Amino acid sequence: MLALYFAPGSSSMAAHIALHEIGVEFEARPLSFARKENRTPAYLAINPEGKVPSLVIDGRPLTEVAGILFYLAKRYPQAGLLPQDIEAEAQAVSWMSFLASTVHPARLRGADHARAVFGVAEQRLGDREWALGPYSIADIHLFRLYWRFSRSLNLTAADLPKLAAHHDRMMARPAVQRTCEIEAAIGYELPA
Amino acid sequence: MLALYFAPGSSSMAAHIALHEIGVEFEARPLSFARKENRTPAYLAINPEGKVPSLVIDGRPLTEVAGILFYLAKRYPQAGLLPQDIEAEAQAVSWMSFLASTVHPARLRGADHARAVFGVAEQRLGDREWALGPYSIADIHLFRLYWRFSRSLNLTAADLPKLAAHHDRMMARPAVQRTCEIEAAIGYELPA
Repeated sequence: MLALYFAPGSSSMAAHIALHEIGVEFEARPLSFARKENRTPAYLAINPEGKVPSLVIDGRPLTEVAGILFYLAKRYPQAGLLPQDIEAEAQAVSWMSFLASTVHPARLRGADHARAVFGVAEQRLGDREWALGPYSIADIHLFRLYWRFSRSLNLTAADLPKLAAHHDRMMARPAVQRTCEIEAAIGYELPA
Repeated sequence: MLALYFAPGSSSMAAHIALHEIGVEFEARPLSFARKENRTPAYLAINPEGKVPSLVIDGRPLTEVAGILFYLAKRYPQAGLLPQDIEAEAQAVSWMSFLASTVHPARLRGADHARAVFGVAEQRLGDREWALGPYSIADIHLFRLYWRFSRSLNLTAADLPKLAAHHDRMMARPAVQRTCEIEAAIGYELPA
């Protein structure tokens, strides 16, 4: 059995989208940061940093967006979320490492730095429809960061046309729409 | 043919160690940040961020420590750098994501924050000999960060006994010793 701990609108949205893409049954366990539900002893036993997402697989916790997306894509290959080729898998890991280590924390270093880093992501995406060519978990991860930070950084299609078009392609996917509906209904908790 | 672009003592050391663990032939292409060899048009065509490492596989660039370590482990499974099990692979990706996104940039947020983050890594390692149980690419990645930052943060075995013992186990490996010898002979360029 799978259980996903997530906070609506946070990084965990990527794992939530992947579960809806796959269509596998899972227990949805939303947490509120505002109510510090991520700091309870029970949750810290699953994720000692108190972060989301956490995926619990038959009782065994798995943390980090990249780790969870990789697991889901490999465990459910029929969903087609990862090309079945070693070099393409490595490119997916590379993209997710770039997103988690460079794009995600860029906001901590100021808005100008964050905008420059999204420019690198725009260049890396290039003229491809999806990050690796075929649709994959790298797109889900990229989408969530652009979805989140394009709002707070006021990024538009005039600034980053390729990322904006990628965002629109993602928003057209039923799994993305479903995830946004569910998380919005619970209530996004987005810091400014 | 494989070619590794690296800067002695930098993050690229992890990829360099993995190549020596595997024992595969590769072209070693050291770059000097001090001489801005990572900012030449030729190198920026390989890695638009001007970062290291880059692994060029028959002319195709692969970037990010996690992406390169994953590729090498999967391409050369006989080296035993990654357990052959989906959940264990996902745990390796999770560890590397945590290291790249949380541990590596922690120094930017001050020495106290960095020490706290290494404490999380200590807790995550726990009483295991290696991060996943069996030796893997996650250990190589963890080692390089502790090797680098334990010096500048003055971390000792009294502070983080499990990470210090892990470091010593890593230093006993011939591939690690060989990599350190080669990189030291070229000359480490470590910022304070």
